[in-house]
Amino acid sequence: MNSVNHAARALVAALRAIVGDDGLRTDEQIALLDRGYGADNLAARIMVSPGDTDQLARVVACCAAHGRAMVPHGGLTGLVGGASSREDDVIVSMRRMNRIVAIDTASSTVTVEAGVTLAQLSDALHAAGLDLGIDLASRDSATIGGLIAHNAGGIRAFRHGMMRERVLGIEVVLADGRVYRDLNALTKNNTGYDLKQLFIGSDGTLGIVTRAVLKLTPLQTPAATALLGIENLDAAIELAHRLRTVHHGRLLALEIMWHGYAACVRQAHPELAALGLTDCPLYLIVEVAHDVALDMNAQLEDLLGSALEDGVLTDCVLAHTRAQREKIWLLREDSDAVAHQGAFQLSFDVALPVPELDCYVRALSDALARFDPAIKVFVFGHFLDGNLHIMLAADRELATRHEAIEHLIYERLPALGGSLSAEHGIGVEKKAALRRYGDPQRLALMADLRRLFDARGTLNPGKMIDV
Amino acid sequence: MNSVNHAARALVAALRAIVGDDGLRTDEQIALLDRGYGADNLAARIMVSPGDTDQLARVVACCAAHGRAMVPHGGLTGLVGGASSREDDVIVSMRRMNRIVAIDTASSTVTVEAGVTLAQLSDALHAAGLDLGIDLASRDSATIGGLIAHNAGGIRAFRHGMMRERVLGIEVVLADGRVYRDLNALTKNNTGYDLKQLFIGSDGTLGIVTRAVLKLTPLQTPAATALLGIENLDAAIELAHRLRTVHHGRLLALEIMWHGYAACVRQAHPELAALGLTDCPLYLIVEVAHDVALDMNAQLEDLLGSALEDGVLTDCVLAHTRAQREKIWLLREDSDAVAHQGAFQLSFDVALPVPELDCYVRALSDALARFDPAIKVFVFGHFLDGNLHIMLAADRELATRHEAIEHLIYERLPALGGSLSAEHGIGVEKKAALRRYGDPQRLALMADLRRLFDARGTLNPGKMIDV
Repeated sequence: MNSVNHAARALVAALRAIVGDDGLRTDEQIALLDRGYGADNLAARIMVSPGDTDQLARVVACCAAHGRAMVPHGGLTGLVGGASSREDDVIVSMRRMNRIVAIDTASSTVTVEAGVTLAQLSDALHAAGLDLGIDLASRDSATIGGLIAHNAGGIRAFRHGMMRERVLGIEVVLADGRVYRDLNALTKNNTGYDLKQLFIGSDGTLGIVTRAVLKLTPLQTPAATALLGIENLDAAIELAHRLRTVHHGRLLALEIMWHGYAACVRQAHPELAALGLTDCPLYLIVEVAHDVALDMNAQLEDLLGSALEDGVLTDCVLAHTRAQREKIWLLREDSDAVAHQGAFQLSFDVALPVPELDCYVRALSDALARFDPAIKVFVFGHFLDGNLHIMLAADRELATRHEAIEHLIYERLPALGGSLSAEHGIGVEKKAALRRYGDPQRLALMADLRRLFDARGTLNPGKMIDV
Repeated sequence: MNSVNHAARALVAALRAIVGDDGLRTDEQIALLDRGYGADNLAARIMVSPGDTDQLARVVACCAAHGRAMVPHGGLTGLVGGASSREDDVIVSMRRMNRIVAIDTASSTVTVEAGVTLAQLSDALHAAGLDLGIDLASRDSATIGGLIAHNAGGIRAFRHGMMRERVLGIEVVLADGRVYRDLNALTKNNTGYDLKQLFIGSDGTLGIVTRAVLKLTPLQTPAATALLGIENLDAAIELAHRLRTVHHGRLLALEIMWHGYAACVRQAHPELAALGLTDCPLYLIVEVAHDVALDMNAQLEDLLGSALEDGVLTDCVLAHTRAQREKIWLLREDSDAVAHQGAFQLSFDVALPVPELDCYVRALSDALARFDPAIKVFVFGHFLDGNLHIMLAADRELATRHEAIEHLIYERLPALGGSLSAEHGIGVEKKAALRRYGDPQRLALMADLRRLFDARGTLNPGKMIDV
């Protein structure tokens, strides 16, 4: 407490009176927090963890009265600095609001508090034969409140949509400490403007999510997995069309990798040679779910066999064992392997209409090669969403050239109908890019809305958009 | 033109200069319009039909400059008076903006103008093996712009969500004539507040939708249809659980009827006796889609056979011919049969959590019987959405007692987590009820938003909420 000044002491006392000793941490403890992916600058010296919505409402009113801005914390798995704080900010951690309130199997909905992690929720749902329809690598840490605030995506968005589409109802504490409660659990409820949508994907700038009602889907488990070698994007589109036409409801994943990325991961993992895949410009990973009375291994083998015969596929490895399946997914998921390709890295998350993907990657690779031939480009992503994760590695420093590189990545997107943030959001990291490449009229409306909901700028300041 | 006064003459001339003779109708022609379901009072004397977004933008700016409010028209199939107008309003008909701009099969999206009808769009999509995932009885007249403005529902919302979930991108003319253009075609695009959500389900009060990008799903066609007799709601929930567990991705419809409604339709259609169904408190209609390598008739027969053995079902009629299928659907869809039960009728559209449905219907029936034992109650709906259509018939006048009856229907809903408008919206008809039963804080935020988007109140005045 020694570094907290007099005014702060009064605030801390007031907060302690609301949340108790358990709900308060000060600077020494904050310094010890696991910073997740490291994008967040945790300079704030006070962290408050309310135990319920009422406490949070009082915390927010208290901070507002003390003229302090608040930064909500979920699992700190964001990648755009959405949880970063300044010294005078108060961190509002949702970790203590971690109850799964109720699972309604008849309506296929669940009511949860914001601090529940995705893994915690998924485990409970799977036990009931249900699923959220959202999955992410950061499932063990990412919280439902964070997934909502940043409208999370992941591998299954092409089937079930983004987090936005899972949210039926929401409870939010507004900037002045009022509670906006719309815990709707109905699919159909047409009674006015759908205000909850504003909070979803707002980076916590319009309100702090405390609770939500989420729509569920029956649990599907993987039945067959294959790694496919493909010559060009048209062939990948044709294969996707065949898969969706007969297996859309069973398609769990359709991931894409460009050759350079797959080669990089294979180089880092010599055991992947056992998969025996030939070199191809593109790879797809397809995974389908079990289904009643269908041998999905045979179904997938048939479909892929025909595609090989027709020349749509160049190569195909069907996983026959659990170990093979794990190898296939390792190829896609070990993006850390890029670190071996250069001491300096940058990564980007963009989306484009599917037919534009390959042209874009080629044009970008050419532009980057002209900019600095020493930069290596690695691309993979969620195919049917047109969502590319682009990783750059070089042995020369990249951060100081970030803006110029960013421009090469973003400048082509508006004309192609692309997005400069597919699933990571804006936060701090992409705020300048949004201002530069975004539609001015849309940005003006966003600023109007932020002012309407938070006239004093006390909710997650410095994120998304300046007002 | 004789009834149009001098000021209006100047407005008409200005509008004619924008849209040409083809785009303008005056009072005599408006009087001849098909009023759809009749809920709309078309008192306006000027109707303008812009040919494109630019014309509409100029029309809106022109009306705003002349101090005239505007009422958008789609297919006039709304049920809550959302298209009704006052004498001095200008009707903005979207009928000339009826182009399907592009179908992108690789991304499963379509770009359409607002005046395209659902049937027109569905025909084009089905030819490409795709589907919007939305279907409604009013498909031949209802337009995409109207479906978006009122967030349409229908029979398939439990699978694909409401219209809201089909909208990826939108183009809207704002109250001052500016064009808000966000024709996003991506599943993943996390670049700020999702403003398009405000226009969806706004009854046209925040802007006029001109164009949209919609998400598509592979076309599924019906393979098997059955009519089921059920003893109680728990059994219906159990059957739904069994169906969703193995056939969720193939389930096209799960409709519910209470005994009184089914009896009323059977009485009106003696040929339905051929279905041979026994009397039961509840009926369900289930329809499943064709699927690769699965005999869905046999699959459904197996599942229903087990349910009969287990006592979950009391009776089951599987359609073996097209004629039988049509009879089953007639039972559900001929709600006009209620007209034979009394000269005066009222109808309501509510939703509740599925487990509450039967209790609610019983309590409501009891309350109505106490209110006036001569009122007959008929209930059917979309089971998995908890969406009930409640029709009342009596030989004594009902309209003057509308508010009292409405109170019996709506008063129980808030405590049960129900909605007083599941899929019909608010418009004029439910505005007072929303004010009475809605959350005051939510209504205050809605009013703030309406003021933000339309400070002068020129867009569809008198609908949704007063500011």
